[in-house]
Order: sequence, then structure tokens, then C-alpha cells
Amino acid sequence: MTGGISLLPVRGIGEVVPGDVLAEVILAADPGLEDGDVVVVTQKVVSKAEGRLATVDPDDPLDHKRLVLDEARRVLRRRGDLLITETKHGFVCANSGIDLSNVAIGQAALLPLDSDRSARRIRDGIRARAGVEVGVIISDTFGRAWRKGLTDVALGTAGIAAVVDLRGTIDAQGRELQVTEVCVADELAGAAELVMGKAAGVPVAVVRGVDPGWLRESSVAAEVVRDPAEDLFR
Amino acid sequence: MTGGISLLPVRGIGEVVPGDVLAEVILAADPGLEDGDVVVVTQKVVSKAEGRLATVDPDDPLDHKRLVLDEARRVLRRRGDLLITETKHGFVCANSGIDLSNVAIGQAALLPLDSDRSARRIRDGIRARAGVEVGVIISDTFGRAWRKGLTDVALGTAGIAAVVDLRGTIDAQGRELQVTEVCVADELAGAAELVMGKAAGVPVAVVRGVDPGWLRESSVAAEVVRDPAEDLFR
Repeated sequence: MTGGISLLPVRGIGEVVPGDVLAEVILAADPGLEDGDVVVVTQKVVSKAEGRLATVDPDDPLDHKRLVLDEARRVLRRRGDLLITETKHGFVCANSGIDLSNVAIGQAALLPLDSDRSARRIRDGIRARAGVEVGVIISDTFGRAWRKGLTDVALGTAGIAAVVDLRGTIDAQGRELQVTEVCVADELAGAAELVMGKAAGVPVAVVRGVDPGWLRESSVAAEVVRDPAEDLFR
Repeated sequence: MTGGISLLPVRGIGEVVPGDVLAEVILAADPGLEDGDVVVVTQKVVSKAEGRLATVDPDDPLDHKRLVLDEARRVLRRRGDLLITETKHGFVCANSGIDLSNVAIGQAALLPLDSDRSARRIRDGIRARAGVEVGVIISDTFGRAWRKGLTDVALGTAGIAAVVDLRGTIDAQGRELQVTEVCVADELAGAAELVMGKAAGVPVAVVRGVDPGWLRESSVAAEVVRDPAEDLFR
């Protein structure tokens, strides 16, 4: 079968600490990158490398809540300890995207300030060091309305489309497609999660074989984040 | 790199008509199925095979709206011609999941009555005819709150987990993971979409290499559809 896509976990990435250059960390794991690959990097290691860490009293739940509110533009819903917030980036997620797993006790990882920029930095670093042209997606695990379970979505992109516009594409009956805008970045982030697991210590995966037409400048902030004024569910 | 997953489009599937046995249609395309593969089948061909088709006057938008309301349990939001409805299955989507592309002019494809059952029927048919044990996901393209662009999600599953519960899994610091329930069925559906395209006439894809622990009895209705009473955004 031709035209397939491969999802490849990148093993051997150790603990990431503030100041680490993620392009170097990824290349040191010898992922065998090729032009046109998409490298999906989980938010947690990006936040660590960028020093987006806060101290939190592990015995005081209010301390965590304070951080959540600091990172929020507004609180959309509350249920018990759970706050569904709109972050300063415009993401809607639980607890402003701050969770305490896979960071040191007493620390919390905050979302990167600008994940599109984080993605560009990794993409540029890989290009400069290894001479390969890849797309990069920063991913995180979010819940959603109406459906149970969480999925990985894209917080930032570089060199790979966030939303692909199929408007004008003609179906088999010669009619214009009604479904026109596909968020391939979220589908790629979710696909990569399938080979990462949550506790397996695999924070990076490579997607090989994507449509070359999707390899372009892009931005989650511009293409995916919905203006609250246009959102029917906020 | 070991532990990877392959996304493989199944080409050569022709027009599906009411009464077609999808297991036969898929096997006739010679997909080379192996035990443990997950076969993702788009809703449109399932609806066609099951005769879930309605006639619609292509020149009368009200006729389409009548169908949308017939299939809805309730309307959650309206904007212009767009209705966001809760279908009788409990799915929240645009226009009750009814679109008019890739069906004959004058027809509309309705969502399958029970996509979990549709998935089981295909899984059982493949087992009976080819002697391979696969998982099956029925997928469709839905929008979501807060994020622009559409992604493919699972309407029904058989033999592959819908939601995987990681509760109790320990992170690298020995702490229980806070993110516990991953909707792998939606991630698999979205991943498969990446090799299908929307107009390319590839309504089936194979996902090879999923975690064998995910191969179990399952149900989107039971695991994914959120009870409206528990939903903060309905």
C-alpha cells in the first residue's frame, strides 16, 4: 500500500532542564530525521527547556489554583477542583493547562508563552544543526466538550499546516465539498500520542509521509484558536 | 525505531450501494490485513451500505433542514444555515452529521443508527471471511468548540478501545498521572483521516501497530458520548 504515514516514537530522550536546546536534545536521540518529517514535541519538555516552571506547595491545593488563575484570561466553568479556563493564549482547557505530573515535586509546568515560536525555534535549530527541513508541532493533552476522554492537540506549529482548506475541492459527484477545513495539526498531534503513551517517557515522535502540500508556514494562534466572539460555546 | 504505527490507505474501493457487505467490499480491495490491525471506515460508506439515505430536494435548503431536525434530539445553537444539534445518538455536531457531498444528487446520507453495531458487523465479517482479528472504527468529520477546523472522530468501535484509562499509572517521579483517560479511538480516527483525504475516494484506512492492550470489546456510545447532565458545555 503506497501513500502511507509512519508514526515513530523517539526513544532515549532524557530529563530536560531549563536552558536545554531542544533541537540538540532531539538530534542527540538519533531520530534519523528526513526532509518532510513532522516532529511532534510534547508541551511538558518545551516548558521545561524554556524554564516555564513555577514552584507550587504540593500540600496546598490552593497554591495550584492560584497558578491556574494567574495563567487564565477567564474561568469558563467550575466543577469541584476543576476549572475550565481560557488561557492567555486563547486555549480552552482544564486548569490553564497546568498539571503536576512528570515534573519534580514542588514544581508545576506552565504552558509555553508562544508555542508557535517554540515550534519555529526547534524547526530552525534542526535545520541549522542537521540540514533537514522538518515541520514541528508542540502538543498537549486537552479535554473537549461533549465527548469523554482526552486527546492530544497542537499548541503550536512551524513548517506544517495547522488547518488545511479544502474549499473548492470537488467530490466524486462533481459537487463542492461542504467539509472544507481540516485541522491536520490536531490530527497529527493525536496520531503522535498513539506512540508516546503517557508514562513511557517518550516526549517526541516523528510523523513521516505527510502530504508535501501541508509543509508550509503556519500558526496555531492564527489558524486554530477561535475568536471568543465567534465561538458558540463560550 | 521500534514501536511505530503505520497508517495505510486502502485504495480501490469503488462506489458502495445499499445492501453491500462492507467486510466483503474491504477485503475485495486486498488490504493485506493482519491480526491486531485497526480498520477505520468512514461513516459515509457505512451509511450507504446500510441504506441510511434520504431523498432531499437539492434546490430547497428547507428540505435539508427538515432532515437535520428529524435526526436531532435537540438544537443546541444556530448560526445562519448552520444548526449545531445533539443527535439521537448523543453526538454533538453540525447539522446532525448530515452532509450532501459524496452522495448522489438528490440524496443525503444520515448517520448510522448504531455505529458500534456497524463496527462489530464489519469486524465479525472480516473475521469470518479472512480469519483475521481486527479492530474497527467508524469515523466521521466533526467540528468542535473553541478550536477552528474539523477533525475525524470515532462514531463507533469494535475490538479496539474507545477510551484507555491510565488511572494509577505512575509517572517518572513516582506520582500518579493526573491525565488519565485518553480517547484513543478519536486519535486513531483522526490519524486515519491523514491518509484518506476528503475527495480522494479513500474511505478506508488501516492502522497497524497499535498497543495490543487496546484490542478489546468497546463502545463509543458507552465510553465516549458524554451524558448531557454531566456536560458543562451543553
